[in-house]
Amino acid sequence: MTATTMATARIAALQALLRDGGFDAALLHSAADVFYYTGTKQPANLLIPAGAAREPALFVRRARDFVEEDIRASGFPRAWVADGQSFREVAARLATLGLAGGTLGTSEDKLPTSLYRSLARALPGWELRDLSALVLGQRMVKEPGEVELMRRACGLFAAGHEAILAAARPGISELEVSLAIFAALRLAGHEEYIPMRRWDAYLPPTGTFASGESLWRISGHAFTVTGVGISPAVPIGPSLRRLQAGDLIVYDVPTNYRGYFGDTARTYVVGEPSAEQRRAFDACVGVYRATIAALRPGITAEGLFVVARAAAAETPYAPYFMGYGDKQGAYIGHATGLEQDEPPVLSPRVTTPLRPGMTLAIEPKFIIPGFGAVDVEDTWLVTEDGCEVLHEQPNDLFVVG
Amino acid sequence: MTATTMATARIAALQALLRDGGFDAALLHSAADVFYYTGTKQPANLLIPAGAAREPALFVRRARDFVEEDIRASGFPRAWVADGQSFREVAARLATLGLAGGTLGTSEDKLPTSLYRSLARALPGWELRDLSALVLGQRMVKEPGEVELMRRACGLFAAGHEAILAAARPGISELEVSLAIFAALRLAGHEEYIPMRRWDAYLPPTGTFASGESLWRISGHAFTVTGVGISPAVPIGPSLRRLQAGDLIVYDVPTNYRGYFGDTARTYVVGEPSAEQRRAFDACVGVYRATIAALRPGITAEGLFVVARAAAAETPYAPYFMGYGDKQGAYIGHATGLEQDEPPVLSPRVTTPLRPGMTLAIEPKFIIPGFGAVDVEDTWLVTEDGCEVLHEQPNDLFVVG
Repeated sequence: MTATTMATARIAALQALLRDGGFDAALLHSAADVFYYTGTKQPANLLIPAGAAREPALFVRRARDFVEEDIRASGFPRAWVADGQSFREVAARLATLGLAGGTLGTSEDKLPTSLYRSLARALPGWELRDLSALVLGQRMVKEPGEVELMRRACGLFAAGHEAILAAARPGISELEVSLAIFAALRLAGHEEYIPMRRWDAYLPPTGTFASGESLWRISGHAFTVTGVGISPAVPIGPSLRRLQAGDLIVYDVPTNYRGYFGDTARTYVVGEPSAEQRRAFDACVGVYRATIAALRPGITAEGLFVVARAAAAETPYAPYFMGYGDKQGAYIGHATGLEQDEPPVLSPRVTTPLRPGMTLAIEPKFIIPGFGAVDVEDTWLVTEDGCEVLHEQPNDLFVVG
Repeated sequence: MTATTMATARIAALQALLRDGGFDAALLHSAADVFYYTGTKQPANLLIPAGAAREPALFVRRARDFVEEDIRASGFPRAWVADGQSFREVAARLATLGLAGGTLGTSEDKLPTSLYRSLARALPGWELRDLSALVLGQRMVKEPGEVELMRRACGLFAAGHEAILAAARPGISELEVSLAIFAALRLAGHEEYIPMRRWDAYLPPTGTFASGESLWRISGHAFTVTGVGISPAVPIGPSLRRLQAGDLIVYDVPTNYRGYFGDTARTYVVGEPSAEQRRAFDACVGVYRATIAALRPGITAEGLFVVARAAAAETPYAPYFMGYGDKQGAYIGHATGLEQDEPPVLSPRVTTPLRPGMTLAIEPKFIIPGFGAVDVEDTWLVTEDGCEVLHEQPNDLFVVG
């Protein structure tokens, strides 16, 4: 018997989900998944038999000494740690457990096909099936300890914001401001890496600091303000463009505190805002408030998007809501946690009902060609009877320069 | 007919390789592969029929305007650009081309299993097979234009080196020095992103700046000096450790210029080096020189490793060559290019003969618990009759502080 710890409680919950979902075992290999159940980000494969009768095994691919340090904090039992770089050890363990065959779940959205093929060869008696929905479903509702880390993550944004107020002025480049922001964020505790769930997604760890025409040049990597980067080799992030009086600026960064994200964005203007800039910003804040007012348990992901879109339709900027033309996104935000882009995305046809404990980045924006963009984003916790922002970060059309 | 351009020449070469390899077509989806043949890093799927008779199609998943800008430089024909976010368009195009079935190659080391399954569903008449060895084999031998970009990438290291000489002193943290290095590299042209081929690999875009005991705490993410990071959530990269008089320091960074890498490392000491530090560094340089002296066409990847290991065996530091104990790596370097970790790795059982045009990072090191680490790395071009360093970066046991 093992005393209940953070790790063993999470694993027991997954073991029940596996049994109910028709899986005989799970093999987790992806860093965020393994970290959630064990506390380590070292390369490892985690075998979890369905039901409570059989013990899991963490096959450490490398660096067992680090793994043993990491699991102390999570309470993953040391007796469950094993060595094994290949799937042969997994096959042998399944046989030892009396599991000769059945259905094995892996996170197929993260498993490369070449590994899938070698896993299938190592386990000829097994049918392989995707279980990412089960794991992501469990991770969707955050525990209080996770929420606390996410509050800390959201709080990091303040350091970047202060760096912008101090550095942004006419003549300085997007890249130069970004470097000042990055230094402030990192010294405040921001990790350098932004893990994403979607296979082809990438976001720069400095965040997106974009100004002027960079605001409406939307890279294909996201239907949002992406920035254009310094060359086509990495077509996202800050560019060498220098700030000019009158520029709108958006800073959007998923801050990472000990593996957990907060996602926050604010809008700035170089010098006093024009009436039109103020009007667009106020319209964005209006959509934001309408969305937050509807954010409570029971509404679906799609339902929240519909509320936001309806609010945007009442503004003069409806054609620019979440992008424009063929670059208009249909979403108002997404869940976040151990990966920046967790499900559910708040989009049409996503019927997931929102539940207490979900953590959602709400991010209305208008992206207006020839004009700029305005954007407000904070990360919210769904509570029993409504919602609560994870960090009170002042929101305004901030004047810089 | 299309005039021969960089893109069409590379595609024609792959079409011949596909035909000879028994493939009827290739579908490339991974960013570095698509970039190599088209010049764009926007999300897109590239369909290339085998042989010269049929035309390729670039299915743009998003941001066609950026794609059309990007392909102008590479000469990928605009007539080959198509819209299509899913595999349905690919299936329809194959039918239009008169290809009802056969063998379709994808880069299975990069294709998530969930995409493999949907591709298999969209193309019921097709057998899917891995072609990554074909594509990586073609990319292995660099063209003069690629070598030129890699020279520029290697040259970026000088900016980071100068930043270390200016910033490193007792009392400053690894993280603080890293931020100074990162700012210098980025302003010199370094991209923020380090694409890796291996599915679970990650390296921080600031590079690895590690000192003192951080040098022998080797994360499982690589058998090298990794640094320990600021928390177990990203257990690699600079830490909050403060430099002390007498510390050894290693700085190792894959610099990225317009998508191409140079990989360089140097060793530093805080204050005057001790006799033992000097001796270990000189031993490392000895292994480096012996390896470079053997680097020429015809020797195999394994052969070069054997030379290096033999040179290391003649020093007092053999047990610490490329790590120690269960963290001792068996390699002396790796190819680099559009991804930091391209094949071949210079390891036992890798029988690839080295050929003119290959670009190889050579990186001997000794990692000595309780003492530190010494490391020298540069990126070399294999020439017709030997080799040539891509950038002449001074090498010494540099004194800082």
